[in-house]
Amino acid sequence: MDGPGLARALSEWEALLGAMHVVRESGALRAASTATFATRGQVQAILRPANREDVQQCVQIANRCRVPIYPVSSGRNWGYGSRVPVEDGVLIDLARLNRILELDEELAYVTIEPGVTQRQLQEFLRQRNSRLWMDATGASPECSVVGNTLERGFGHTPMGDHCGNACALEVVLPTGDCVRTGFGRFAATRAGALGRWGLGPSLDGLLSQSNLGIVTRMSVWLMPEPECFQAFFFVSNEEQGLGAIVDALRPLRLNGTLRSVIHIGNDYKVLAATSQFPWADMHGRTPLDQAAMARLRRTLSIGAWNGSGGLYGTRAQVREARAQLRRALRGKVDRLQFVDDRLLKVMQRFARPFRVLSGWDVSRTLKLIAPVYGLLKGVPTESALKSVYWRKKTEIPDDMDPDRDGCGLLWCSPVLPNTGADVTNLTNVVTNLLLEHGFEPQMTVSLATERSAICVITISYDRSAPGEDERAGECYRALMEVLVERGYPPYRLNVSSMGYMTGDASYARALEAIKSALDPNGILAPGRYEPARAGQDAHIPPAVVPTVR
Amino acid sequence: MDGPGLARALSEWEALLGAMHVVRESGALRAASTATFATRGQVQAILRPANREDVQQCVQIANRCRVPIYPVSSGRNWGYGSRVPVEDGVLIDLARLNRILELDEELAYVTIEPGVTQRQLQEFLRQRNSRLWMDATGASPECSVVGNTLERGFGHTPMGDHCGNACALEVVLPTGDCVRTGFGRFAATRAGALGRWGLGPSLDGLLSQSNLGIVTRMSVWLMPEPECFQAFFFVSNEEQGLGAIVDALRPLRLNGTLRSVIHIGNDYKVLAATSQFPWADMHGRTPLDQAAMARLRRTLSIGAWNGSGGLYGTRAQVREARAQLRRALRGKVDRLQFVDDRLLKVMQRFARPFRVLSGWDVSRTLKLIAPVYGLLKGVPTESALKSVYWRKKTEIPDDMDPDRDGCGLLWCSPVLPNTGADVTNLTNVVTNLLLEHGFEPQMTVSLATERSAICVITISYDRSAPGEDERAGECYRALMEVLVERGYPPYRLNVSSMGYMTGDASYARALEAIKSALDPNGILAPGRYEPARAGQDAHIPPAVVPTVR
Repeated sequence: MDGPGLARALSEWEALLGAMHVVRESGALRAASTATFATRGQVQAILRPANREDVQQCVQIANRCRVPIYPVSSGRNWGYGSRVPVEDGVLIDLARLNRILELDEELAYVTIEPGVTQRQLQEFLRQRNSRLWMDATGASPECSVVGNTLERGFGHTPMGDHCGNACALEVVLPTGDCVRTGFGRFAATRAGALGRWGLGPSLDGLLSQSNLGIVTRMSVWLMPEPECFQAFFFVSNEEQGLGAIVDALRPLRLNGTLRSVIHIGNDYKVLAATSQFPWADMHGRTPLDQAAMARLRRTLSIGAWNGSGGLYGTRAQVREARAQLRRALRGKVDRLQFVDDRLLKVMQRFARPFRVLSGWDVSRTLKLIAPVYGLLKGVPTESALKSVYWRKKTEIPDDMDPDRDGCGLLWCSPVLPNTGADVTNLTNVVTNLLLEHGFEPQMTVSLATERSAICVITISYDRSAPGEDERAGECYRALMEVLVERGYPPYRLNVSSMGYMTGDASYARALEAIKSALDPNGILAPGRYEPARAGQDAHIPPAVVPTVR
Repeated sequence: MDGPGLARALSEWEALLGAMHVVRESGALRAASTATFATRGQVQAILRPANREDVQQCVQIANRCRVPIYPVSSGRNWGYGSRVPVEDGVLIDLARLNRILELDEELAYVTIEPGVTQRQLQEFLRQRNSRLWMDATGASPECSVVGNTLERGFGHTPMGDHCGNACALEVVLPTGDCVRTGFGRFAATRAGALGRWGLGPSLDGLLSQSNLGIVTRMSVWLMPEPECFQAFFFVSNEEQGLGAIVDALRPLRLNGTLRSVIHIGNDYKVLAATSQFPWADMHGRTPLDQAAMARLRRTLSIGAWNGSGGLYGTRAQVREARAQLRRALRGKVDRLQFVDDRLLKVMQRFARPFRVLSGWDVSRTLKLIAPVYGLLKGVPTESALKSVYWRKKTEIPDDMDPDRDGCGLLWCSPVLPNTGADVTNLTNVVTNLLLEHGFEPQMTVSLATERSAICVITISYDRSAPGEDERAGECYRALMEVLVERGYPPYRLNVSSMGYMTGDASYARALEAIKSALDPNGILAPGRYEPARAGQDAHIPPAVVPTVR
């Protein structure tokens, strides 16, 4: 689409928003069309509406001119496509809709617009001396809370299932109509932000991982700061040790003792979080194989598996949770350490003298632990972003921008049951497959809910190395193929992999019917979480032409 | 609809299911067209499919012949319309789809069909010596688990939000197509029953309180039997005492100490649970006014407010929860009693000698406590059904059937924030309004989630008394009017009150678009949780012609 429709739309958008809020400069468009892996969609312009009414009118113009539009909140969808649209189209950048509209200390929720970042919400709560904690994803402080929720991102606290702790959406539909979900549609009600269902069919589910509406407002539930908080960190030196750990933790997840997401990263993942690829030691060879990783692991005292989680409650509740956790993990981990504010301060203060005395590099441990400790209290961190530079041969810049810097990052994130057998099966398959394809198998297994885990597999590479985009894409496709076949479907897709949306023709038909009903002109984010049309092969996503520039 | 379409459909259905599974006998149809209040829809036939394939074909026939069909699971939707359709149509009775298909002890869930009753599931778990507890609604052991979930019913345990603890729906759409929600559409996956969202837009929300599909299978999450369980019961003698209690309990709900639904019934509610209207003492006068109720309350040692809830966990967790609860309720209740299996047995054993000694009628207390105690452990009970006979002048029969017996029961159930101010405001309004209309204000306030409560208001009457249907209907409408106006919308509607579905024209348009897309011929449960069409008045439901026979 580059014809007269686009030209007319652009002039109407400019008349509406002012020229300064319709970005057409080629450098900016190229940047917005660049992700951390090969993508196809080209950004034709970027609209910057100021409020919901602007969004409605932008959508109406798109309908009149039949121009596809793609909303982004903050565009920090790293590893899944950043700001890049699935197909060519115009971005609607919602960053200017950044108001925090309501904070209810008593009922523990906040109502925000999509431009509100994790950092902004965190600072707002601090400035107000709020006794409420938010949940944060590890991605970046500049990440949109609403954007991450709509992608079904997850965090670290008891509110870690973001989609499960948000409600009362205000949504601009593809026709430009505006609806409120849940009880929000009832005029005088205070119940809107408090419950998920509302009266009658509930629309919330339709609006995450979807192209059926633009969310312009959302209420997010917060948790009251607990009387007592302790983080725990555990380490297993056994490469095959994860299964027993998951089987030991599942009952504590199910009985409510562990109320938050538990993240368990492998050695590769931890290494990438604290350093770049050891190009010199490896004499330029990739990947870092398991034998080399095992040696490094011992040198740096990293576990084969490294877990973290939080305990929240009264002093007595935390004490009991600690006792249960200790009992459950006995004999299954090599170290289990509890950390609270006091211990963390002591460690920070005495890291240097302690190293002199004991030889243990506490500051290295701190560098790893401190950001996770913060996340377990809902404090966002920038530290995870650094790991995206893992395979770069250049130093990590201060103003990190993985898209601009040619960082290669593809996240593949299957869902699996919280059982040792499944976790062992899946992680072994992944490890072998990634190494065979020449990539380090960086992995985190997160016990996201009582019953299911999400494994986030990182394919990390250097986009400026010739052929790497293609090799990473092949690895991703091979991985998806085997995961879907073994019964571990992805919880989330990237903009180049929407072809994996299907799996059932009747589901595709139903979704297509709903899409046509709500978006008759097909202008809203075509291809985004849209099932492949009948006739298309279900499991092979359309070929992607690399777009490294 | 009574024309040639229906005749043709009936002969096709008979060919499909056999004549014995197409009920056309007038007595049966009249019974199925009778609820506990005035309704409009007439049942024209009852289809009894044996399996999902039958359901699909029944739906296809309905489409071809343009005959409206209304699915019911067990038809025990007491107080909201029993089996009666919103408009004239044919019932699809799903009672024969009653298989329990899967039980996973490890991951704590069960997969069932809509005909599975609470009693059946409970007995299945017991026979298997399962260590898992289900959640039960107080309605009736013969109530369908799936049916109650789809109406968004709630129970008493930590799994009390039924809709929030169910997933992986198998759904026959109005076209006859069958879809699986969540991850269920992926072939080999075990993750289907474990998580809500799936990949891409989630359809689950659309299918509860809706007329968009017939659910033929569902996975329901269960809870592992805790190491320790204690019920608690509290009583406040202050008519204005509820606000302080709710403010005291909310923080414990929000911090995870109280993980289950807490139910607080008023004096009228408790009285109706243990006896019928005192016609003799009242010399036939209704309603039982507040002064008379206050006297009775003291005689029978009922509180103005009577609460119950459960504590689940390890011994130490329950001990700590008990300490916190005691602290929170200190000075706000007149009695707080903890009950466990041992104490209950002792009470049952010594009720009679204890009465002789102390004069306290323990068996009366037991009659009240024992069923609630069971519900807190997920054991369904028949006892609540008796209260439906409150205003009847005849004795309660052994084979209770409120529809047949002319029991008048209308439930009106607004949602409100978990704050003392809201609870006080709402309960006072309700009390005055019901008494003015000549009905006892039976009420339960249930702290259903961390942030919101549901108040279930019972309008209990005798349908065989002339004019009572109309008076009850007027009272219901007056109640809805004032509740919606004050910001307390209903969480659920009865078959005669679907006119309250609206509240926002754009929401109605969106839902109408989805309905037309999925049900082009409008054959599935027309009017059921369907917004009033544009032009119809939002807040006044269509007049209902009483159908007492």
